[in-house]
Amino acid sequence: MSILAVGSIAFDTIKTPFGTAESILGGSLTYFSLAASHFTDVKLVAVVGEDFGEEQLAAFAGRPIDFAGLERAAGKTFRWGGEYNLNLNSRETLFTELNVFGDFHPRLSAAQREASTVFLANIHPALQHEVLDQIDRPRLTAVDTMNLWIERERDAVLELLRRVDLVLLSDEEARLLSGEIQLPRAGRKILEMGARQLIVKKGENGALFFSPQERFFCPAHPVEDVVDPTGAGDAFAGGLIGYLDHAASWENPPLRAAMICGAALASFGVEDFSPRRLALLNRREIAERIEAIRGLTQVPRVPLWQTGGTG
Amino acid sequence: MSILAVGSIAFDTIKTPFGTAESILGGSLTYFSLAASHFTDVKLVAVVGEDFGEEQLAAFAGRPIDFAGLERAAGKTFRWGGEYNLNLNSRETLFTELNVFGDFHPRLSAAQREASTVFLANIHPALQHEVLDQIDRPRLTAVDTMNLWIERERDAVLELLRRVDLVLLSDEEARLLSGEIQLPRAGRKILEMGARQLIVKKGENGALFFSPQERFFCPAHPVEDVVDPTGAGDAFAGGLIGYLDHAASWENPPLRAAMICGAALASFGVEDFSPRRLALLNRREIAERIEAIRGLTQVPRVPLWQTGGTG
Repeated sequence: MSILAVGSIAFDTIKTPFGTAESILGGSLTYFSLAASHFTDVKLVAVVGEDFGEEQLAAFAGRPIDFAGLERAAGKTFRWGGEYNLNLNSRETLFTELNVFGDFHPRLSAAQREASTVFLANIHPALQHEVLDQIDRPRLTAVDTMNLWIERERDAVLELLRRVDLVLLSDEEARLLSGEIQLPRAGRKILEMGARQLIVKKGENGALFFSPQERFFCPAHPVEDVVDPTGAGDAFAGGLIGYLDHAASWENPPLRAAMICGAALASFGVEDFSPRRLALLNRREIAERIEAIRGLTQVPRVPLWQTGGTG
Repeated sequence: MSILAVGSIAFDTIKTPFGTAESILGGSLTYFSLAASHFTDVKLVAVVGEDFGEEQLAAFAGRPIDFAGLERAAGKTFRWGGEYNLNLNSRETLFTELNVFGDFHPRLSAAQREASTVFLANIHPALQHEVLDQIDRPRLTAVDTMNLWIERERDAVLELLRRVDLVLLSDEEARLLSGEIQLPRAGRKILEMGARQLIVKKGENGALFFSPQERFFCPAHPVEDVVDPTGAGDAFAGGLIGYLDHAASWENPPLRAAMICGAALASFGVEDFSPRRLALLNRREIAERIEAIRGLTQVPRVPLWQTGGTG
C-alpha cells in the first residue's frame, strides 16, 4: 500500500505572538508526508528550486518517503509568509512567491500511477486535475484546497469535489464554498454540490465528518503549549489518509479511527516550529496520543430516567 | 431529589441577523429551570416585578418547578437586550436594567435549604455567596457567572470557585478569569486557582470538562437552523445539573453522560426565540437527541499497525 501525494514543498516565514521563524522547511506536502509516513509509504510529487538541498532533505531522513517524484527546477523554491493573531486561530498571509511552482506540471511514472491512495494537497486545482487525469482508479482519492482557489477557480474546485472520494476543507473554506455561515448547513450543502464525503477542519475545535449517511465529530487534542499552528491541517490529513491507506485492505476501513489518527498527528505538529516534531515521533507516543484523544469523548451510555424522575 | 436554583428571570430583547424579539421571557434561571425540569424537581429563587404575570407563568406550566421562592417586588422585572453577530457566536449587550434585582436578597425557607443540589445561575456574586451562607451541605453545588462580575468582582468570584463543587464558564470568561488565551491552559490555571471541577462552554464548539484527574470533551449537536443562541449556556447547565441531581443517589453519578444531557437541552434551546421549545419537549425527543450527540463521537477502538506498516 502507498500514497501518491502531490502538493507544495516550501520555505515558510512564520510570525506568532511568541516568536518568529524565517525560511524554515514547510509546505502542505511536507507536513502531510511526514505525518502519513508513520502509517504507510508515501511517494511524493512536487517541485523545488536550487535553494533546496541536503539540509532540507535531512528532515525526511529515515521516513518511508519516496523522492523519485521530486523535480528540481532552476530558480527558487516556493516561499510563503504568514502572521498569526494572538489566539493563534487566524492568520494573515504576508507574502506568496510561487517561484518554481509557476511552471510546474506533475508527470507521473508508472509506479506512481499504481499507488493505492492519491492525496492532492493544496496546490492550484488545475494541477490537481492533471494528476487525476493520469491515474487509474485507486482505492481512495482525497483533496484539500484553500480560500484563494475557491475564490479564483471556483468551477475547477467544484469539479474536483465530484472527482474524488473525500474532500478536506477548513471551516472558513467550507463557509466560503457553500455560502452558509453555520457549519452543519455548510456541510450539507457541500454534499449537495457533489462531494461524496467531507471533513471540515476546525483547528483547536476539532473536525466534523459529513456523508449522506453519517455525521462524526473528532475532537482536537487539548494542547497546552501551541507553538506554531502552521501545517496542522496538513498533518491532520497525513494522519487521516495515511491510516486509511494502511487500513485499505481491511473489510471496513474505520474512518472514525482515521480521524483520531489525523487529530493526533496534527497535535504533534503544532508543538514546534517546522515539521521537525513530526519526523521524530515514535509509535509509542503516537499510540498514546491517539488513545488520549479517543478517551476524551467516550461515553459508554446515558442511563435515563431509571429512578422515576419527573416530566 | 431537587435543585435549589437561584438566578435571573428577565424580559429579553434580542436581535439576530435573522430576526428580532422584543421583551420576551428570558433570564438565566428561566432557561436553567425549564431544562433541568426534564430530569428533576426545581425550586427556584428569584425576584420579578409587577410586569410579570400569568402570561409569563404559563411558560412554566406543567413543569415540576416550585415557585414558592419567587418574590414579587414593586417596579419592573430585570431587562436585558443583546445583538448577535452574523455567525451567532458573539454578541453585544445593548442594555441591562437591573430594576427589581437592585434590592434583591434571597432568603431561603427550610424546604429550600434541604435541596439535594444547589445551582447558582449568573447573578451578582454577592447574592450567590448569600445563598451559600444559608444552606447546609448539599450533595452538589455549582455556579455560573459572567464577564461583568469577573471584571468588577474578581475576589468574590475567586472565593465562589473555592466554595462550590463545579464551576461553569464560557470560553471567553475562562480566558478573562485565567489570563490565558489557550483554553487547555486556562482550564488548568482555574483548577490551580481553587476550582474543584470546571466546565468551559464553547457554544457550537462543545464543552470541555477539567478536574485534577480528568479531561472530557462533549460536542455540541450540529444544529442546522440556529434561531437564537440566548440561554444556550443556561439550558446546558439545566440539562447537566438536572441530570446530576436525578443521578445523585447512584453510586457513580456519570458526569460525562450529564454533559451530553446538557448539550441536548442546549441544542433544543437554540432552535427558537424564547425558552418555549424547552418547555414543550417530551422524553422521547430528549432521549433521541442525547443518543445522537453521544453517537457523534463514539469510536470503539483504533486498531494500529496490525498489518505491518512502516515507520
